Amino acid sequence: MSLPAPLTGVVPPVCTPLTPDREVDVPSLLRLVDHLTAGGVHGLFVLGSTSEAAYLTDRQRRLVVETVVGHVGGRLPVLAGAIDMTTPRVLDHVASAAAAGADAVVATAPFYTATHPAEIARHYRLLAERSPVPVLAYDLPRSVHSKLSAGLVLELAADGTLAGLKDSSGDLGGFREVVVGARSLPGFSVLTGSEVVVDAALAMGADGVVPGLANVDPHGYVRLYRLCRAGDMGLARAEQERLCALFGLVGVGDSARMGGSSSALGAFKAALHLRGVIDCPVTAEPQVPLASHEVECVAKYLAGAGLV
Amino acid sequence: MSLPAPLTGVVPPVCTPLTPDREVDVPSLLRLVDHLTAGGVHGLFVLGSTSEAAYLTDRQRRLVVETVVGHVGGRLPVLAGAIDMTTPRVLDHVASAAAAGADAVVATAPFYTATHPAEIARHYRLLAERSPVPVLAYDLPRSVHSKLSAGLVLELAADGTLAGLKDSSGDLGGFREVVVGARSLPGFSVLTGSEVVVDAALAMGADGVVPGLANVDPHGYVRLYRLCRAGDMGLARAEQERLCALFGLVGVGDSARMGGSSSALGAFKAALHLRGVIDCPVTAEPQVPLASHEVECVAKYLAGAGLV
Amino acid sequence: MSLPAPLTGVVPPVCTPLTPDREVDVPSLLRLVDHLTAGGVHGLFVLGSTSEAAYLTDRQRRLVVETVVGHVGGRLPVLAGAIDMTTPRVLDHVASAAAAGADAVVATAPFYTATHPAEIARHYRLLAERSPVPVLAYDLPRSVHSKLSAGLVLELAADGTLAGLKDSSGDLGGFREVVVGARSLPGFSVLTGSEVVVDAALAMGADGVVPGLANVDPHGYVRLYRLCRAGDMGLARAEQERLCALFGLVGVGDSARMGGSSSALGAFKAALHLRGVIDCPVTAEPQVPLASHEVECVAKYLAGAGLV
Amino acid sequence: MSLPAPLTGVVPPVCTPLTPDREVDVPSLLRLVDHLTAGGVHGLFVLGSTSEAAYLTDRQRRLVVETVVGHVGGRLPVLAGAIDMTTPRVLDHVASAAAAGADAVVATAPFYTATHPAEIARHYRLLAERSPVPVLAYDLPRSVHSKLSAGLVLELAADGTLAGLKDSSGDLGGFREVVVGARSLPGFSVLTGSEVVVDAALAMGADGVVPGLANVDPHGYVRLYRLCRAGDMGLARAEQERLCALFGLVGVGDSARMGGSSSALGAFKAALHLRGVIDCPVTAEPQVPLASHEVECVAKYLAGAGLV
Repeated sequence: MSLPAPLTGVVPPVCTPLTPDREVDVPSLLRLVDHLTAGGVHGLFVLGSTSEAAYLTDRQRRLVVETVVGHVGGRLPVLAGAIDMTTPRVLDHVASAAAAGADAVVATAPFYTATHPAEIARHYRLLAERSPVPVLAYDLPRSVHSKLSAGLVLELAADGTLAGLKDSSGDLGGFREVVVGARSLPGFSVLTGSEVVVDAALAMGADGVVPGLANVDPHGYVRLYRLCRAGDMGLARAEQERLCALFGLVGVGDSARMGGSSSALGAFKAALHLRGVIDCPVTAEPQVPLASHEVECVAKYLAGAGLV
Repeated sequence: MSLPAPLTGVVPPVCTPLTPDREVDVPSLLRLVDHLTAGGVHGLFVLGSTSEAAYLTDRQRRLVVETVVGHVGGRLPVLAGAIDMTTPRVLDHVASAAAAGADAVVATAPFYTATHPAEIARHYRLLAERSPVPVLAYDLPRSVHSKLSAGLVLELAADGTLAGLKDSSGDLGGFREVVVGARSLPGFSVLTGSEVVVDAALAMGADGVVPGLANVDPHGYVRLYRLCRAGDMGLARAEQERLCALFGLVGVGDSARMGGSSSALGAFKAALHLRGVIDCPVTAEPQVPLASHEVECVAKYLAGAGLV
Repeated sequence: MSLPAPLTGVVPPVCTPLTPDREVDVPSLLRLVDHLTAGGVHGLFVLGSTSEAAYLTDRQRRLVVETVVGHVGGRLPVLAGAIDMTTPRVLDHVASAAAAGADAVVATAPFYTATHPAEIARHYRLLAERSPVPVLAYDLPRSVHSKLSAGLVLELAADGTLAGLKDSSGDLGGFREVVVGARSLPGFSVLTGSEVVVDAALAMGADGVVPGLANVDPHGYVRLYRLCRAGDMGLARAEQERLCALFGLVGVGDSARMGGSSSALGAFKAALHLRGVIDCPVTAEPQVPLASHEVECVAKYLAGAGLV
Repeated sequence: MSLPAPLTGVVPPVCTPLTPDREVDVPSLLRLVDHLTAGGVHGLFVLGSTSEAAYLTDRQRRLVVETVVGHVGGRLPVLAGAIDMTTPRVLDHVASAAAAGADAVVATAPFYTATHPAEIARHYRLLAERSPVPVLAYDLPRSVHSKLSAGLVLELAADGTLAGLKDSSGDLGGFREVVVGARSLPGFSVLTGSEVVVDAALAMGADGVVPGLANVDPHGYVRLYRLCRAGDMGLARAEQERLCALFGLVGVGDSARMGGSSSALGAFKAALHLRGVIDCPVTAEPQVPLASHEVECVAKYLAGAGLV
């Protein structure tokens, strides 16, 4: 299917369930997609950071896109991350994802290398020229170590390079600048990657939301989205605060023993396992697994959010 | 051939010449290898940062290793960078490089993801377990955004995980800690990636040096290495200072127009082109090319260093 | 007067007008206070970052507090920044500000030194023990280079150490965590330092707002505050967006010639000068003055916001 | 006395002994100065980072300068740090230190504020214009969060603004650029703040060294300095490595419980206390004290370095 312009609603970055020996667990992935679809989501984003794209081999990435696209069968738009260091490598992922049926690709600025705004602009222009599907920018400074300025995003939106923005920067002021600037650019999609200020982002005029936590509670985010769209800000705030409390689960892992990714992605997968969606909560290497008392802590967060 | 233990001498990170349409320029690469060999270098490091590994596709990376290994024919050890975000992806590069004949691989800590020292240790242990060739650690905090501590490197050296360290951190104090600690670990290679404190690193006891600038002036670095080994610190300092002055060429690019990588790698390639070693000075996308007055500036640096 | 608990409304960080030879311009400062009071603000924050506290000598800081406190005469609460590197130095400023009549002090975590969360907690506990007036925490990671976590702020709020938080971190997710956590701590003041997400912060439940831009347009921020309190989110958004557009003036200074502080504080002062509030737009040394075409640009922003 | 031009030799940044209630312990300070003088040092640097200048009130800073200057009585040059956020505040410290008899002042770039190279240059020019004594630049990026480039330092050296540089950046490549560039500027002092690459810095041509660890072992650093000057690089390296091993004491403090400053400065003071030089090992607030087993660890480092 072609990408809605703009893309609206809840578009979860889909976790990638793994088998105990770290292969893509296709049956669990299909169940996860069904779980999200049953929750009412409006699109799917595979191979994002929440999907452990940084940990998946090219073969595994391809398998994920094919599996999800094949299963969804055009009922929902499927976006695919094309996460790599520079233009030529990203273009290989773009070609693979498009061939596997992705409706759009989502790419960060170059990373690992020392990058200049002029090079970031050139990167996106080259991607857009050579991609068979629309390109969205992915702003994730904590991984990429540079920030996409609102000015640059709007320039690349205005000239047709970018079809949208997924903003996971945490900078809601800069996000608002894009939202306001994009009002004169119909069709451009402005999406927030935040879990915890979704109500605020939608009130500002965001088109859609891409919260990792929607893997665990898709119904909650869809409810929140509808309340915001209906203008019922009081109930929206209550629902958002329930989800904020649930989001506390990302901190269950002991920071003396593991990094933030092991803790957050481990907790998402533990929650999906506890909810019966996926078979195995394992995360990719070299991430450290949660201890059993940390998994119990995840269970308490689920209970606290009414998800038992 | 098997990797010397320790690896000593000058081991340049080999630039990757490209054609105007950004394919690997194999004839130029062969001439560059001959130029380095004629300069007396003691090994070759392909697919490092200076090699634009971050910009090369998997196919191009493979071609580079095969080309250089085939041409060298065992006369010199060939190390290959295995630069990617996490363990599973790095392991794909390790397998490819080893199959193409590399004598060792050089890998950074995970990047893009939020990484913890325990995960970095696990990363290297998994690489070492599964790599058919020795694994060296590559410490490059400006790209990777975490620093390998001397303690961690020595722990992984002592248990046989790591065969060596290429330190491009710029932290000569930490480097010294590894050098001193590794004296009780015969066979472990401690290499500096610096261009400008080679004399100091060797005086401390470093085994070898991996300076990007040695592409441009391999004879100079080999001369410097020999002077240091001979203990002639006065002449060594003079040679080092000549090379430091030459190294100023990395700053020819206008920082209002391009990033540090475009400037430095562009200048290395411009110098190799001006010296008649490679056919085309182009760098990979999305890097910005040097302007003609910037190339003239490179020529002046060459002249100033007596390289005309 | 005693500090309202919680402090609510619009509490501008008051600019410090200077004479051409960089002395505090007392008559202009009085006019600025009158301008803010006429705009309907609910309190005043002197010696914050917008006040150029980092550039004022101890004597000048004391003069500012005495001047403003004396002029306000208890009609509005006056908070004073106590900005310095560590506890003993901050305590000197606290004593001075309290003696000059400030109703509360606002202090950052230690900076310049390498600081640990345990030391930050200790810092605030020592300040609170020894301060004759309530202490608010000032979260400003771009200056202090550490972030106050929501957990730490709430711990120090719960035990009575902190009377409030001024959050200028830009992290609205963390801000929300404090807002929600502070609901069970009546009297604790949660204030945002943002100019551009005031509507969102108030919708979340913030008590008040401390926007530097309120120097230029106090009426606008008071209007925005009232619209938010009245629940008229549509008009609030329009007013916020007008102020966001006006806030663009902080970028008028050429970044090739000056830093962000010179540009933003220079633009605030230029706007106050153009509006006839202060006599001289000069900023403290070593900041670089705006060029005349940059001041014209400020005038255009004022005109665009209807402030002519 | 007037500052030697260049200043050469070992110039320790003098610790500031405190009483249990955190007042300057003048008798201990005098004993420390005698201990350093007996060790053969060539100058004294008070109110640096190792001196806990960031923690001392203005009154305490003044007392330290007066005490040391009075005690030394012109036998050695005394430099004083003038550590504060911006030009006007630094100038107050400069005036105070000069009035108390300091022979030169040492100042960082502005911090806390967002600073631009043009503003840093202006800062130093204003300081030099208004200081009655020579001004040296203090490069300490881990505190100041900006780096003084070699180009800027040399420009300010060439026009007479700066009398010298104390480089605590850890970037020995940039340091060398200043050393080489300053050869044509007789009288300009290039000093390294490193403890662990003193031999390398001197071999490059540094004039002097300012190692915090020289508080603990002044004889060792003076011996190292003389060996380097005599060109006996083998013995110099052995002495340097002994001091590197001793320097490990900065890490005795548990990083789960305290920051790096508490650990390093606490260890220096514990060592001085154990060696009988100062009465009380306490550090300034809000630093966390070492636990008794951590102090025992300091004792082992002393024993290992032959200092019992």
